[in-house]
Amino acid sequence: MLELAQPLFYHRSGRFRDLLARVTADLQYVFQTTAPVLTLTASGTGGMEAALANTVPAGGKVIGLIAGRWGERWRNIARALGQTFISVEVPYGEPVPPAALQAALRQHPDTLAVCATLCETATGVKNDVAAYGRIVAATPALLLVDAISGLGAMECRTDEWSLDVVVAGSQKGLMLPPGLALLSVSAKAWQRIDTQPASPRFYLDLRKYRDSLQTNDSPFTPALGLIRGLAKSLALVRAEGLERCWARCARLARMARAGLTAMGLELFAQAPAEALTVARLPERIDGNALINNLETWYGLKLAGGQDSLKGKIVRLAHMGHIDAFDVLAGVSALELTLARMGWPVAPGQAVAAAQSVLHPLPEEG
Amino acid sequence: MLELAQPLFYHRSGRFRDLLARVTADLQYVFQTTAPVLTLTASGTGGMEAALANTVPAGGKVIGLIAGRWGERWRNIARALGQTFISVEVPYGEPVPPAALQAALRQHPDTLAVCATLCETATGVKNDVAAYGRIVAATPALLLVDAISGLGAMECRTDEWSLDVVVAGSQKGLMLPPGLALLSVSAKAWQRIDTQPASPRFYLDLRKYRDSLQTNDSPFTPALGLIRGLAKSLALVRAEGLERCWARCARLARMARAGLTAMGLELFAQAPAEALTVARLPERIDGNALINNLETWYGLKLAGGQDSLKGKIVRLAHMGHIDAFDVLAGVSALELTLARMGWPVAPGQAVAAAQSVLHPLPEEG
Repeated sequence: MLELAQPLFYHRSGRFRDLLARVTADLQYVFQTTAPVLTLTASGTGGMEAALANTVPAGGKVIGLIAGRWGERWRNIARALGQTFISVEVPYGEPVPPAALQAALRQHPDTLAVCATLCETATGVKNDVAAYGRIVAATPALLLVDAISGLGAMECRTDEWSLDVVVAGSQKGLMLPPGLALLSVSAKAWQRIDTQPASPRFYLDLRKYRDSLQTNDSPFTPALGLIRGLAKSLALVRAEGLERCWARCARLARMARAGLTAMGLELFAQAPAEALTVARLPERIDGNALINNLETWYGLKLAGGQDSLKGKIVRLAHMGHIDAFDVLAGVSALELTLARMGWPVAPGQAVAAAQSVLHPLPEEG
Repeated sequence: MLELAQPLFYHRSGRFRDLLARVTADLQYVFQTTAPVLTLTASGTGGMEAALANTVPAGGKVIGLIAGRWGERWRNIARALGQTFISVEVPYGEPVPPAALQAALRQHPDTLAVCATLCETATGVKNDVAAYGRIVAATPALLLVDAISGLGAMECRTDEWSLDVVVAGSQKGLMLPPGLALLSVSAKAWQRIDTQPASPRFYLDLRKYRDSLQTNDSPFTPALGLIRGLAKSLALVRAEGLERCWARCARLARMARAGLTAMGLELFAQAPAEALTVARLPERIDGNALINNLETWYGLKLAGGQDSLKGKIVRLAHMGHIDAFDVLAGVSALELTLARMGWPVAPGQAVAAAQSVLHPLPEEG
């Protein structure tokens, strides 16, 4: 954060080019790719639109794997661009099974792109992106992955898993304020972009970012402050080691799951993500009141559900700079709040369960 | 800058809505409009594309008033979107005369939009946007104005001048790092947007920003840190008063012009902007060496020319947080550097000329 308060410097300078070169190399490490990773000044949605707008023309066919609100975001973008969108949808709380993708691709062999979500933040589901990659790699289609809320926190191996475009943001696993969209683009995707028609575009034209990156430059005035901050946060990830980051988030996820189930809540996601944990609330607990009480009574901001899940779930994030004792605090506040709202919780049981994951005591094995 | 280092808070919250409401009201003051001003996470170019993409469909006719690189940016965007672009061009250093716009509109009565540049940063020219507004208001066309490098520093009266879309950025007169594009949209423009076809778009769809703004919300995860910073910098502008900001920049511009001409340089712009001053360099001075020497010898970063003006001009900005003594420092360093490079300058003459503008001594009248 303090890096963001540093005086700026001119972005058409050797100093900026050195910065962007370093950031790009570190992004390649975090994305696990040898392809260039492009840095756009935009919300994550701008990055998702760039992925579709650069690879699919109006009328082109797209298969979307939808397990929640963020999968629906792909559909909304594709439709706005006039693309033909085939939805492969599952009920909220479930991941999209790879077999459903396989069937859809068999039925639609003219598919140009498949859109997936690594971590469906709306439901806490992790999708099996590696399996999607194996399926899509055998076809002419491209696999576009929204990894905005997972990258850096959850295993995501861009090259090894054959992910053609991976979209991330600055504000989740990368520990910064929002404002940057980050995109890796595979050789298969560049082949498409360079030879096939797509959507009319200028600001989101990925070719401009690639061409500028040849000289470690940005085609448009970049969000310089955030890029400086990104250099710092990527250095933290590098210092810890990416696989250790993933393991840490996975441990925090186990803590959260243990704590929430120990207080009698049911996990909402069938294939839970490591970046956040989502629990279904009991019928008799008003979820909106719960979120308000958490903030009023204990000063903790947890997220509730959106759209049709509003009032029905509680979401606890544990990625980026969030540590084990933050998770413990969240579990504790939730336990206390639920108790005050009349839910039968044995005091301390949930925090004890969460803590035992952090470091199992000898007698627990 | 310190505001940017503050801990973040959740952007789907009453606290964010209060912030955006305050920022939007202050932006309306700085834009001098009663229309909503929309805040996008994007470079200025993203804002320019939003202006064109929302108001003109593919094949639609656009007149572009081009006095330099930034006018050319409008052309590049319009062409990427498949629009028909009519260029009204003048040589670098000149503003586009309103009569030329009048003639072009007469020749192309089916024009949907006119693109203009308030301050052409490439050449230091100020265009007569007020006159363009009077002309375009009498037609069905919309006037889209790139005010990225001028807003807050130069007179720009959105409503009074009938400017339909005005695009600004966070990083010039508004004194912040880059990352936000700010757009005002007139009732005439909304009428077009709501009833006529335009470009396929999602992230840059201005209707989404307007609809969210009804509840002081943002359709996509906003660059929260920059918006907090914007609240601070807009408060500075409000405290000083917009017209006093304009007057201060105008005084700094007179200082710069006096200093540069006193050292024997010729002003490049025929209608000089208040936001920056551009001087033509003597034939025998290598402009690239000059910029390097300024930085190496005196630690000052001035801008040179871009594209065909590379090496031929020097550009001195005086907007935003830049004050009179920054301008004096710039004039001084330029005078010293030119002298060391062999240009005949009477030592101190340029700084004396600049200072006399700051506060004329009694004997100077």
